[in-house]
Amino acid sequence: MRIITISREFGSGGRTVGKQVAESLGIRYYDKELVKEVAAQTGFQESFVEEHGEHAPAKNWLSYVLALNGQSSSGMSANDLIWAVQRQVILEIAEEGPCVIVGRCADYVLRERDDCLNVFIHADKDVRAERIVRLYGMSDKAPVKRLEDKDKKRALFYKHHTGRDWGMAQNYHISLDSGVIGIEKCGEIISDLYRC
Amino acid sequence: MRIITISREFGSGGRTVGKQVAESLGIRYYDKELVKEVAAQTGFQESFVEEHGEHAPAKNWLSYVLALNGQSSSGMSANDLIWAVQRQVILEIAEEGPCVIVGRCADYVLRERDDCLNVFIHADKDVRAERIVRLYGMSDKAPVKRLEDKDKKRALFYKHHTGRDWGMAQNYHISLDSGVIGIEKCGEIISDLYRC
Repeated sequence: MRIITISREFGSGGRTVGKQVAESLGIRYYDKELVKEVAAQTGFQESFVEEHGEHAPAKNWLSYVLALNGQSSSGMSANDLIWAVQRQVILEIAEEGPCVIVGRCADYVLRERDDCLNVFIHADKDVRAERIVRLYGMSDKAPVKRLEDKDKKRALFYKHHTGRDWGMAQNYHISLDSGVIGIEKCGEIISDLYRC
Repeated sequence: MRIITISREFGSGGRTVGKQVAESLGIRYYDKELVKEVAAQTGFQESFVEEHGEHAPAKNWLSYVLALNGQSSSGMSANDLIWAVQRQVILEIAEEGPCVIVGRCADYVLRERDDCLNVFIHADKDVRAERIVRLYGMSDKAPVKRLEDKDKKRALFYKHHTGRDWGMAQNYHISLDSGVIGIEKCGEIISDLYRC
């Protein structure tokens, strides 16, 4: 194994697990760095890339699906462009050497490689709701509603680009409930597996 | 954690993982023993209980769903009876002390307890096909077709009795790909987690 991809439910601590694993193994970590690179190559703002690189738009999911499935008269849409550049950046990062890549369907983008350990981190809604309020503060929306919206948007994005159902255990080599197992222990299990 | 439930795809080696974990931890193991108990209490043959305790019938799944959702004029169907007795046996086993329970929706039956570690073992079809031919020999049906039929029947049974989608990572605390990770290593990870 050379590369670890980490997919995660919003608020599950998957990003923290990824950082811990990368530090423990002494390999590179890609999350914001990947967003920066895609932003630089496409000219979009980082916040736009971050949102559109793994989420269906907030409003009107049906029209999003219809638009993405149809042919736009002006050629490539912003979403298509971000997907294409992001895919290329992930493929190049993987070529450069051992690393951890968080999110952005990296598990699917790198599916032809046989040196990836694909991880999924999830947790119960209560645990995640408590965590996002602690980390990001309150917002107008109730925390559980925020989670559900984000989960739906990630699932739709994943389904559209990969044809797979998001969260199916069969898409990953290991899936862990960080709420029950603990974020630190999740990191230890993954690092240990990578070393084997 | 006192109890480990292991759900598994057919041919993934989940049963072997379960046995190894139970031996390593020195706790009881329930698989055939559970079937025997349900057979004794219902009067059905063990092979009938084994099949109907976690699979929708082979033929005509639609009529199975319709029949189970409808009210039978003669009261409880054979499937309902097996489900009810099996559920009760699982609840009693869990009360008796630490153990490993393989299959039979034990994760769902014991969902009210907070001392269960729920595990899902899966593997790619090629790996499982090779394994079932090695262990159980060839049959008239192609091995991949056998897997797919069995997977479908388990998924339908699980959906019917639990309302959940079978194989979703969120239903389990840990899900492992035994084809990539190896059966023995899966057992080690689970035993280690139980000891924590």
